Amino acid sequence: MKISELSRRAGVPVASIKYFRREGLLPAGRATAATLAEYGEEHVQRLRLIKALTTLGGLSIAATRDVLAAVGEAHTTEGKLGAISYALPVPVADSPVADSAQGAADQTAAEAEVAELIAAMHWQTPDASPHVRGLTEALKALRRVDADYRPGELAAYAELANSIARLDLERAATFGDDAEAVAERAVIVFALSAPVLELLRRLAQEDQVRRRVAERGEALS
Amino acid sequence: MKISELSRRAGVPVASIKYFRREGLLPAGRATAATLAEYGEEHVQRLRLIKALTTLGGLSIAATRDVLAAVGEAHTTEGKLGAISYALPVPVADSPVADSAQGAADQTAAEAEVAELIAAMHWQTPDASPHVRGLTEALKALRRVDADYRPGELAAYAELANSIARLDLERAATFGDDAEAVAERAVIVFALSAPVLELLRRLAQEDQVRRRVAERGEALS
Repeated sequence: MKISELSRRAGVPVASIKYFRREGLLPAGRATAATLAEYGEEHVQRLRLIKALTTLGGLSIAATRDVLAAVGEAHTTEGKLGAISYALPVPVADSPVADSAQGAADQTAAEAEVAELIAAMHWQTPDASPHVRGLTEALKALRRVDADYRPGELAAYAELANSIARLDLERAATFGDDAEAVAERAVIVFALSAPVLELLRRLAQEDQVRRRVAERGEALS
Repeated sequence: MKISELSRRAGVPVASIKYFRREGLLPAGRATAATLAEYGEEHVQRLRLIKALTTLGGLSIAATRDVLAAVGEAHTTEGKLGAISYALPVPVADSPVADSAQGAADQTAAEAEVAELIAAMHWQTPDASPHVRGLTEALKALRRVDADYRPGELAAYAELANSIARLDLERAATFGDDAEAVAERAVIVFALSAPVLELLRRLAQEDQVRRRVAERGEALS
């Protein structure tokens, strides 16, 4: 199909398609003339994935490129899953180096909290993992507002996270045996399920708040 | 304390403090002269909360103002929790109105999926809830990349979300009986736990991928 048809099918403007081509997110079409290219179903599919990652997933163009590159990187399904997991942006910005005694104490406490949790969960994640560093930053930020987790609380959340990850991996694996296809699905499950999970959490919170309000016989504004 | 001392204690530049004052995020200090004001511990606390919401929580200044206004709005703890829950930004951008037959079909299917889930979970959430609309948008986006949930999958996630919300509400409620104090804590739990939960999910995913790689005797790149 021509680029105009590709644009219509994928719901992406022609200018954006050209931009994604230049940025290396979309493979080239088959050249049919000096300025014409023929695109296939794989381009429609890839464009829809790019659109989902940049809108629902909230990924930048650079992050999208890294994640899509990870799909092609490793040879095995598991290798690809590992590469994708590390390519996804971590949802916590690095904070500046602690410039106070309190900051240094918070850093030490957060590191100890994460190490203790990982040991208790028997998680096989190295200290250099972006997720270990991200969690340390998040816990440090919570300590700064006196909202650190009490003993056992973080482990209770981690147990639920284990169950969620088990569902995620099942969901990624049910898309056939082809490593590339599983990897593309894994990108969707790893990168796009976070907003769904967050909305389910919000709905459940809303339900529980509403039940408490109803028990008290009040009206919710 | 003077504004310079407040800046040092909260770790927020003086210019930012003045900006938060102008934007209505921070209450005024006690005026001691035409251009001088005296600030208290409540200002330190509020500034740390603003900093946590805008960095770890990723909230805009406008969203932060809405959430902080909700803390003061309702009279009861439950009313405040409801107001905060609705003031928090929904993590899914609204998509343009469906302009194709496929878009309209995806909209109908996503709406039915959400309605069925809410009925199955016995959630007391009205159709007008921002979380109901957000979940509908998210499921529509997943349908567009052929990644809709299979029967039972979404309910399995929703059950785990229920358990998480139960932990969240317990965590918010353990900060005393004062409605205002509970509401401030609820802001932290509702708005700042999402990145922690996402990082725990990522760690659990990483652990499970590593275990599979180890079973196959491979090295993870």
